[in-house]
Amino acid sequence: MPCKIVIIGAHAAGVDAASAARKIDRKAEITLITKESVAGYSRCGIPFVLAGEIMNFEDLIVFPRSYFEMMKLNLKLNTTVTKIDTKSKLVIAEGKNGVEEIPYDKLILTTGARPFVPPIEGRDKQGVFTVRTLGDGKKIEKAMRKAKSAVVVGAGLIGLEVAAALVRRGIKTTVVELLPQVLPTMLDPDMAEIVKRKLEEKGLKIILNTRVDEILGKDKVEKISMNAEKTHGYTFEELPADMVIVATGIRPNVELAKEAGIAIGETKGIKTNSKMETSIEDVFAAGDCAETINPITSYPTLNQLGTTAVRQARIAGINAAGGDVRFNGVIGTAVTKLFDFEVGATGLTENTAKKLGIDVTVATITSKTRASYYPGALPIKIKIVAEKETNRIIGAQIIGGEAVTQRINLLSLAIRKRMTLEDLADMETCYAPPLSETWEPIVLAALYSKPIRRVIYRKKEVIAVKKRLPKKAVA
Amino acid sequence: MPCKIVIIGAHAAGVDAASAARKIDRKAEITLITKESVAGYSRCGIPFVLAGEIMNFEDLIVFPRSYFEMMKLNLKLNTTVTKIDTKSKLVIAEGKNGVEEIPYDKLILTTGARPFVPPIEGRDKQGVFTVRTLGDGKKIEKAMRKAKSAVVVGAGLIGLEVAAALVRRGIKTTVVELLPQVLPTMLDPDMAEIVKRKLEEKGLKIILNTRVDEILGKDKVEKISMNAEKTHGYTFEELPADMVIVATGIRPNVELAKEAGIAIGETKGIKTNSKMETSIEDVFAAGDCAETINPITSYPTLNQLGTTAVRQARIAGINAAGGDVRFNGVIGTAVTKLFDFEVGATGLTENTAKKLGIDVTVATITSKTRASYYPGALPIKIKIVAEKETNRIIGAQIIGGEAVTQRINLLSLAIRKRMTLEDLADMETCYAPPLSETWEPIVLAALYSKPIRRVIYRKKEVIAVKKRLPKKAVA
Repeated sequence: MPCKIVIIGAHAAGVDAASAARKIDRKAEITLITKESVAGYSRCGIPFVLAGEIMNFEDLIVFPRSYFEMMKLNLKLNTTVTKIDTKSKLVIAEGKNGVEEIPYDKLILTTGARPFVPPIEGRDKQGVFTVRTLGDGKKIEKAMRKAKSAVVVGAGLIGLEVAAALVRRGIKTTVVELLPQVLPTMLDPDMAEIVKRKLEEKGLKIILNTRVDEILGKDKVEKISMNAEKTHGYTFEELPADMVIVATGIRPNVELAKEAGIAIGETKGIKTNSKMETSIEDVFAAGDCAETINPITSYPTLNQLGTTAVRQARIAGINAAGGDVRFNGVIGTAVTKLFDFEVGATGLTENTAKKLGIDVTVATITSKTRASYYPGALPIKIKIVAEKETNRIIGAQIIGGEAVTQRINLLSLAIRKRMTLEDLADMETCYAPPLSETWEPIVLAALYSKPIRRVIYRKKEVIAVKKRLPKKAVA
Repeated sequence: MPCKIVIIGAHAAGVDAASAARKIDRKAEITLITKESVAGYSRCGIPFVLAGEIMNFEDLIVFPRSYFEMMKLNLKLNTTVTKIDTKSKLVIAEGKNGVEEIPYDKLILTTGARPFVPPIEGRDKQGVFTVRTLGDGKKIEKAMRKAKSAVVVGAGLIGLEVAAALVRRGIKTTVVELLPQVLPTMLDPDMAEIVKRKLEEKGLKIILNTRVDEILGKDKVEKISMNAEKTHGYTFEELPADMVIVATGIRPNVELAKEAGIAIGETKGIKTNSKMETSIEDVFAAGDCAETINPITSYPTLNQLGTTAVRQARIAGINAAGGDVRFNGVIGTAVTKLFDFEVGATGLTENTAKKLGIDVTVATITSKTRASYYPGALPIKIKIVAEKETNRIIGAQIIGGEAVTQRINLLSLAIRKRMTLEDLADMETCYAPPLSETWEPIVLAALYSKPIRRVIYRKKEVIAVKKRLPKKAVA
């Protein structure tokens, strides 16, 4: 009997789990179930379609129907799973053809997440959007054609990406963020301030420390009112807005799992072990709904990034198909492009580290992405966070005109492999005037950091003392 | 008495050694001596001035006179060191004001290298150039203005960079290389073939396996004759050439050191230890003239790249000024940009590894530099060389439209920190559609490599066997 693998969800995590399972077991019956009418598209691409950088939403479909056919994956669209029965190993689903009982040997939950919309009055009005599905994207795109002004609630990655798209499309846009900085989970305040300034230079208005109180308008949004009483002691003017994008985070879809008695973790994601198994046998989870471990802190984490989703899904898929591989956790590694600059981060921020009680050393550098004399050399700012006691690198943030992504990848690897500032200072990097500086900025940041400078100077002092001692003895 | 530090040479290695020494010892008397009339310029930038990408040769002067003044460095231009007396700790130099004896407490040799010109008949004719100094660059630039055709002898990094510059300036250019591939010390034949094809697409003619026999013409070069008898069994036609660039490698300047009794290594560079000390006390060496160790092979190596020069120089400078730091060797890490693509390499090629008797596993991947649906995604080809027994990474080569440099840096770090294919497969990378693919190509190369695939499949088989056994026992 071929193994029956059922996957709930059919985007990044779902399809990657299915593909990984298929590569291990050519005979398995693999079924993907999604309530959406389109499967296998890239959510991360939506803001870039809105910006006009990618032509069509359909371009985001990374796995077309032909892929599912080629991989012999049974895809059930427009089908909602209403219950999981882990005792009888059945999934109850409702589709066009009514209710169906789908048996499984192995079940993979890639149920994803949904936008969290805070209880702002008027949030149900026309012209208020969230950014999650292809359908959301299309609705926003349509609204953008007529809109002259927009408000984005939330200055996280998605909020800023969509705000940049709105500005590029000529719409007067304001981002309103409750916290005192942009990208609050990704950057420290000092780095966030640089991003804010760069965004403002591009024409984006950003209001921090401020809560959106109400979305006003008849049926359709016309303006918003904001409240910064707590922080500023006064109430802001109202802001006109033809459309409002709420990008205040996402919540994992765990209801099905919860009802089935599958353990939910403290992050509110589905608890998994290093095999991506949930608390119930033969049930795996991966992607935005799955809680894993942060290997720096050893705390549970709900990372909710595309790259994490596919990595977890691959592990879940292989293991569900009878393999035995382990997921090595998530330290949190993200990048984006906003207008003409890139922002990336990996590991812990200085702030988070301090909150966790970790004493830190910070190494920063401002440098160039190419030889200083090569035309088009762009600025780059790097911040590396290390544990004070050991000089072990635990986090990094970079803002630059280019070449941020692979530097973040390098630092992510350095963190995972428990490297220290000394290891970065000792790196052998490559150089060509159109591509890099002779001294790689990461190396300089490490070399100029207090612990490294201290070691060099201290050794010098020791030697100086040694030299003086014999002289005295002779004299 | 302030410490007297004398440095012979005043470019990348010389100035970086002086700067590092100054940071450790504010009172030292630091003197740099060079026979050139300009100090502190970037040789690596010359081909890019020739290409017209950088406007002036003067732009390459990274350390202007004001830098030497600011750092209180005594700079002697147009001054040739004729002898080193390591017993009396004196350097004998000849400049405008005649012969001078310069005493030192610590001496740093950054004497660099000079172009090697094979004994081709006619090599002294007008219109035959090498590429090393600012003066060389200016002469070539002048000749380019009139030239319609050019021949570059040698398909190494400098040869190809200059050839690309010639093509960009509209000069019909042919590269003639003795060996059967381009970039022979940097790439394996399979990767070199891709580079060759890309260069040919841009209009560069490349002739391999061929020796330039003679440079013909009255006083000035008019054509060259080539000989491929050994490999092809026939003699090529002659090739017209208004100018000939000889780029067949460089030789370290070690004569002064040799005469002073300082040990020369098997690579013909000046032997150094991990403190960058030569065989004679208080004499250090750094840069193109200095032999160090390759930590992968433990063999001596003469790397002769700018990044290596500055790293060695920093160590020599700190130690000369009384510090105590160590150089961690060179695995060889280089990158360049040719027309619109980048080529980088680090560590050993498959070929070199095999010659050293190392059994290797090779992981390759062809992927994209951005999300496949994002406009402008460029191709990238990665080859990773690992030791078969351990899966330890020992080399990597990348050809790509962008973002090669930092990937090479990541792989260089991975090699130095003795990482394996498993470590690369386990990387947590960052993703945004305009900047990268969800699955980083380096990760895919590792995941798809034979050893990793074998491990996954093998584990599956083990589990399958385990499952069957109890059943039999029960039956």
